[in-house]
This record gives sequence, structure tokens and C-alpha cells, in this order.
Amino acid sequence: MAPTPTPGANDPLANFYAKVDELESVFIERLGDAVKIPSISAQADRRKDVFEMSEWVAAKMRTVGIDVTLKPLGKQAGTDLELPPLVLGRYGKDPQKPTVLVYCHYDVQPASLEDGWKHEPFVMTVEDNGRLCGRGTSDDKGPLIGWINMIEAFQKVDVDVPANLVFCFEGMEENGSFGLREALEEEADKYFADVDVVCIADVVWVSDEQLSIPQGLRGIIFYLVTITGARQDAHSGGFGGQISEPMIDMVNIMASLVDSNGKILIPGIYDNVQPVTEKEYESYKELNISEDSLYGGTGGRSLHDNQADALIARWKKPSLSLHRIENALPGAGAVTSIPAKLVGKFSIRTVPFMKAEEIDVIVRRHIQDRFASLGSKNDIEIEAYPSDWFYEDAGHWNYQAAIRATRNVWGVDPAMTCEGGSIPIALDFKKILKKNVLLLPVGRPTDGQHSTNEKLDKSNYINAIKLYGSYLREAATLWRENKNRVSSA
Amino acid sequence: MAPTPTPGANDPLANFYAKVDELESVFIERLGDAVKIPSISAQADRRKDVFEMSEWVAAKMRTVGIDVTLKPLGKQAGTDLELPPLVLGRYGKDPQKPTVLVYCHYDVQPASLEDGWKHEPFVMTVEDNGRLCGRGTSDDKGPLIGWINMIEAFQKVDVDVPANLVFCFEGMEENGSFGLREALEEEADKYFADVDVVCIADVVWVSDEQLSIPQGLRGIIFYLVTITGARQDAHSGGFGGQISEPMIDMVNIMASLVDSNGKILIPGIYDNVQPVTEKEYESYKELNISEDSLYGGTGGRSLHDNQADALIARWKKPSLSLHRIENALPGAGAVTSIPAKLVGKFSIRTVPFMKAEEIDVIVRRHIQDRFASLGSKNDIEIEAYPSDWFYEDAGHWNYQAAIRATRNVWGVDPAMTCEGGSIPIALDFKKILKKNVLLLPVGRPTDGQHSTNEKLDKSNYINAIKLYGSYLREAATLWRENKNRVSSA
Repeated sequence: MAPTPTPGANDPLANFYAKVDELESVFIERLGDAVKIPSISAQADRRKDVFEMSEWVAAKMRTVGIDVTLKPLGKQAGTDLELPPLVLGRYGKDPQKPTVLVYCHYDVQPASLEDGWKHEPFVMTVEDNGRLCGRGTSDDKGPLIGWINMIEAFQKVDVDVPANLVFCFEGMEENGSFGLREALEEEADKYFADVDVVCIADVVWVSDEQLSIPQGLRGIIFYLVTITGARQDAHSGGFGGQISEPMIDMVNIMASLVDSNGKILIPGIYDNVQPVTEKEYESYKELNISEDSLYGGTGGRSLHDNQADALIARWKKPSLSLHRIENALPGAGAVTSIPAKLVGKFSIRTVPFMKAEEIDVIVRRHIQDRFASLGSKNDIEIEAYPSDWFYEDAGHWNYQAAIRATRNVWGVDPAMTCEGGSIPIALDFKKILKKNVLLLPVGRPTDGQHSTNEKLDKSNYINAIKLYGSYLREAATLWRENKNRVSSA
Repeated sequence: MAPTPTPGANDPLANFYAKVDELESVFIERLGDAVKIPSISAQADRRKDVFEMSEWVAAKMRTVGIDVTLKPLGKQAGTDLELPPLVLGRYGKDPQKPTVLVYCHYDVQPASLEDGWKHEPFVMTVEDNGRLCGRGTSDDKGPLIGWINMIEAFQKVDVDVPANLVFCFEGMEENGSFGLREALEEEADKYFADVDVVCIADVVWVSDEQLSIPQGLRGIIFYLVTITGARQDAHSGGFGGQISEPMIDMVNIMASLVDSNGKILIPGIYDNVQPVTEKEYESYKELNISEDSLYGGTGGRSLHDNQADALIARWKKPSLSLHRIENALPGAGAVTSIPAKLVGKFSIRTVPFMKAEEIDVIVRRHIQDRFASLGSKNDIEIEAYPSDWFYEDAGHWNYQAAIRATRNVWGVDPAMTCEGGSIPIALDFKKILKKNVLLLPVGRPTDGQHSTNEKLDKSNYINAIKLYGSYLREAATLWRENKNRVSSA
């Protein structure tokens, strides 16, 4: 059951909202024009379309007066492909307003009719139920164009856009975001120097029935454990019982990491995990999340049978997953061979306030101790690839503005949630710009962002435009209050 | 250091041996003719050459008076390819002689110059050091043609071949021996009805420096353990900690089977293992086996640092090897995915007098108990594919004849050894014909039977012919003695 959009009639942005509604068909047509360009970043033969899309976005931005700069990112490492540019833009430079950096991306996932699309994926179809169907409608062209639409609507009701805007629109998000981090580092003290907060419009609600704003993302430390025995695979008939087998060490180490109930067995791993408060626990009980969202993906193998515990396991607790054990030598080897070299892959999802460096120390010590206890004749090597968790204080005016705006536009309070996976971009913005980063949802989890028949509900598209406007207005108000409080303190 | 061939001058077969030596160049030319036909059974486009080879073998057999029957084996299952025939033959039907079934194969492994051969693999090159180089010289055309050569040499010195011979020459040995088992079952009471013993001439010495006759082969029980969780792989970010992971159960089960020192941890598994006698242990110490044969394949990861213990581990003890853990759903999945369904593969090498059915019971019970102890929400399934160990009493006249013949021809006693791997054909002959089966080595382990630059030493080729003759003579003598003893008892 989707919530009914009910922007308050007494909202000072009532004229703006009305204009957005009035321009609905223009905005929908605009999204349709964007969908037509198959800007698939992961397909080399579509790279030219990604470039065309960057030009299209830049042109649309210019029509509403945004000062656009295309920042080239050079070649894609290991290829002859030119990376699509960052489309940077500035709108407004009023010192009496906060400056909000807006991130979206203009590239899309691959799509073709043969994959099972009902309609041609690069021709937007408006279905009777109001769904805007087409690749990129939800991820992320709809959310991106919404910002341009918002400026246009403000202009048409002759109201100042409430905040200064800095745009950072990327064309490689669906293909590794190559070049983004370096560009952020390069521009942190230049183009982005005056940014107060960041708003990333590339996430969805926690459930179709539950509006939400995620304030936390788990981190990940990805581990490769390599165990090396003989120089080549041995035949188990000829050598079984005589030769030291890396696989035996590997399964022993893997089995020592986590139990079948999901409990991590590495001593000290839970030491810095933030406890779940009773209030949080109660709030998780109340969330309106469908059974399918909650348990569908587990195929009846959920370790928890109630919503709060399941969500806490996903969002608030670390987890350790064993991914695979791979033969590290070329060739598959006979089915009865004894593999000579193996790579075991596992990862730890981390949460506030675990410290990646400390975790790495205790994980390595645990593995080395376990390996030593086996008395193996093989060699072991451990590699770790950490990426931090992300957690923002929802008390920050950036979040409070988003919460108020959601209430203003959708008429309901958003739930403050987390996500189990990481969004590296969010962390990059936070670490490099050192500003509060907001993930502002536009679409719904069933939009099919990376699958067939991607859609964006018309209500979500139109309300996103209103949400952006309201968010900027609330942000400006809170920023000013906050500034006055600080200066008068 | 190769032993010097010294057939005793006082051997009653002295004339036969001299004739073999005299015909050396004829015999070598004959092997060269056989090598020219690239009878590669594993390559569909060479199947016609395998058929040509069967005709060539049949024709050569007929020239020495063997009564030849080509037994068609029908189509290769799942293909349109006709299986090459079994070339069956009979020579002699004297009730005063034992009847020896001789098995060899006339197909070969693939080979091409690009693989790194010094010479064209299907043109036999006689090197200065006496090596006969070419695909199939050692495996198994040399050993096969040796039987025909033997009959010719006996005929030319006007001496009766000492035993009746039944030939069974196969053309699919290097590609699964399809059809052989069924043919053996079909002919057991017909073509093979009067067979007294079997001699398989398709093995090599235990080491280049150590003549040997293997009397035992380990069996194998191959296990597939399937653990099923969700219907599809899950993302470890979204579901890690909430979902029950098959990989965690799998590594726990695998780790419970065997330790890093090669000790099998399944209770009762060693119960019926035949103890190694002091005499055996001492004899293993004495074997002349190179360091490289013994430890080369282990790359410094041998669990045993002396010859007797290493050989016992390979030959006389069961072993349990962990082969791999594979994703059982199509597609590799993201590197951070939680696999939904896994197949773990391991095998147990069995030795006398373990009973496959009993072993299977205790293995399944162990795995099920372990799985139950994990409290997992997943499902488990266990499949077993057993193939028995092979062990013959060296006191049988078939073995004693081979031992005496080795001494007669090579001047040294062969070591009675085992092999760690299984030879399914040996077991098939034993189980179906229910006769004593001898594995009579011709070549050396460094002949490169399945690799590049395959060779057969000229001394091994020529001495095999003498060995066959001597073996049949000793067999006939012992058979008669044995018969008289039995009838007078």
C-alpha cells in the first residue's frame, strides 16, 4: 500500500507544488527524452551514448541557468575507452544560503528486449497505473532530472531556489565509478570547497510500503586467504595420505570463523559494536515492511523469525559470510585431484563503531593461530580489502531537513533505517569532503533498478521534485537557525 | 640406473630369447608401423583411425595364426560415434595348457607437435640411446604387439607357445573404456568361459630403478555432499547475518572428516584396514625408488619423510582427500554473494579389507551427525560412488609365474608393490570373470605415457617379448603342478 501524497496546503511552497503538478506532462516527456539515450556504461559500444547523455544533461542544466563544467576523467584504466565526464554545475552563490552538493548519475544498467522486458527498454512507456517504465527511470535519470525540474518550477512561480546548489553528475556509477574518487580529491578544495552538505539521490525506500531515510550502511572487509601446498595439483590416488592438502587447512580455517547460526567466532569481534537501544528495537518492530521484502530472499532460511531481529541482523550487527573456495592454479584439474593452491574468500560486514584496523588485527591473529594449531606443512597468506561503514547522525540539519520535507510532501514521517550493503560513493563523499552526507530516497525497492521492466511511479517522480524543493527550503531554514545558534553561543 | 637384462643362458627358452634378439629390427619396425596410425580415442575426428588400428591389429594377429573376432560395441552413449570394436583372439586350445586372457589396448592419448614433442609424435623415432619415441610406444602399442612378436618368435624356433591365449584388445581405454564392462559380462560364459587367469599388460614399474609387480590397488568412494539453502544466491550486504549460509555448514562438515596430518576423523574408518607387517615395512625400506618419484610430486609437502612411511601412506592406508566446493547453481555469482547451493566433493581411498558398504554407512552417519550438531536451517544430501580396492594373493601361480619370468629375463626379483590409484579394468576383469588378475609391467614410470615425448626403452620392448614367453612357460609349469597337487590331494 503506497502512502498517499498529501503536501500540506498551508505549506509555504504551495505555489511551487502546484506548478510542479501543472508541469507534470512536460517533466514526464523530459524523462522520456532521457530514457531514449541508452547510456550503458558497462558496454564499450555504448560509451558514445554515455557521452551523448552527458551532453544532453549539460544542455538541460543550462536551460535553467546552471553554470555547467564538464570535467574529463581520462581513460578507463586497462582500456582505450575514454571515461565519460563528470557533469559539474553550480546554481546560486548567495552567502545567506547553504550550499548543497547534489549527486546523481546519468549512466544506466544494460537492458534489451530479449532479457524479458514488456516494452522496449529505451522507449519510456507510461502505463495506465501511472508507472513510467524504461531503463533508468528510477536509477537514476528520474531522480537526476528532478533537480532540473525543481529549478524550473521555482523559476516559473518566481521563487528563489532556497539553497545554492553544486551538482556532481556521474556517468560511470554502474561500472565501478572509475575516476570519481580521484576527481573528488582533486576538486575537494576547489569546485567543492564551499559545499556545506551532500545529498545523494540514488537510493530507494526500505520497502514499497515504508518511506525511509537510511542513516547507516554497513562496511565490508573482504578477505582473501591463500593456502599453498605442492607446486601442482596431485592425484589423490597416487598421493592421498602422503601429501599435505591445502583444502583441509582451508575448511578448518573457514569453519573457525562463524557458526551455522551466524555467530562470528573470532574473539573480540563484537567489542565495539554499538548496542541496539530499546527504542530502536521497538521502532524496527513498527516498520511497515512486507513479508516478502523481509524473508523473500532467504527462501525460508532466515535465522530470525521476527522483523526486528531480522533487521537488526542485517543492519546493526556485523556478519561474516563465506563466499567461495577457489582453485588458484590455472585449469580445473581432475575431479579427484588434490588442489595445490587455494584461495578462500570471505567478508565481514562491519557496523558502527567497529574499527577496521583493529578488526583486521584480530582476524589475522585468529586465522594465524588456527593455522598454527593445525600443524600444517602448507603456507598461508592473508589479504584484506576494507571499506568502512557509513553512519550519520540524524540530528544534523541535513537529515532533519530531509525528514521534514518527507513529512511535508508525503504526509508521513520517514523511518530512519540502515542498509546492510555498502555504497562506496557515500563513503567517498564523506571521507573526502568531510561533510554530512544524506542519502535521499526517490524510488521504491520494487522499481527493478538492475533488472527487467525498470519503472518509476509517476507519484515518486513528481513528488521527488517537490521533495527536493521542500528539502532545500527546510535545509536553508535549519542552516540559518544553526548558524545563528553557533554565532550567538 | 636401469637393471641389466641377463636372461640365463641355461634357460630352456634360450633359443626363443635368441630369436627375439635376432628379430629385434623387425619388431621395432612393426611398432613403428603401429605408431603411424593416430588412434586417439578421445578425439571424434580420429575415431576412423582407431578403427583402422583395430584392423591393423587384427591383420597382424592373423599373420601368426590367431583366430580373430572383432566384437562391435555399438554407439558411444550420447554421441553418434561408433565405438571401436574389441579385438578378440584365440591361439591354441590344448587342454594340457592353461588358458591366459591377455588384455591390452590399441588406442592412444592425444598428441601433437605443438604440445612440445621433440619429434613428430606419430612417426616413431629411434634415438641413439635406444629409446623408441612416439605416441603409444609404451601405452599400450608396444606391450600389445609384444604378444604377437612372442608367438612369431616361438614359431620361428619351432617351440609351442606354452599356454593357450585369449586376447582382448580394447580401443577405448584412454576414453572411459565405454562398452568394455558390458562386453565382459556378455562374454564371461562364452568367449572367456575357459580362461584360467588374466594378464593385463598396461602398467609400468614402480620406479625406473625398481622392477615391480603391483598386487594391490586402492579403491575409491567418491562423495558428493549437496547443501541447499535459499532458492538463489543472496547478497552478503543485504542478507549477511540474517540468512542461513550453506558454505558454513559445508566447511564444518569437510573439516570434520580429516585433519591436516592426513588422519581420517570418521570413527571406525580404520577398523578393517589390514595391518602392515614388519616384513612389508622392511621390504618397503629396501625398494630402490628415486627421491623424485617418492617426493617430487609433493613439492616439499610430504607428510612423511622416509620411504617406507610414505609408501605405506600411499599404498596400504586409506586416505581422505577434499577436492573442491562448487557452486551448484548456474553462474558464478558476485564475489560477495552468499551461495545458495553447494556441492562438496571428497573421496576416500580404500584398502584391503575395508568394506565399501560398511564404510558408506559410517561416513553418512558421521556427516549427518555433524550436520545435526550445527543446528542448520539448510538441507543436506549425500551421494556415494564406490569402486572397490583390488588385491591379489601373490602366492597364486599367475603371480609366481610373473615373478619367476621377471627373474629369468631381467635377472632380478621384482618388488611386490601396490598402487595408490585404482585401475577400474583390473577390478572389472576380476569381478566379472572371477579369475586371478595379474598386472604385468612392461614400461617405466618416466615413459611419459600421458604426456609429451612418450617413449619405450628398446630393452623394455624386447624384454617384454621374452618376459611374455617366460611367463607363459612358468605359468604352464605351475598350473600343471598345481593341477596335479589338487587332483592328488
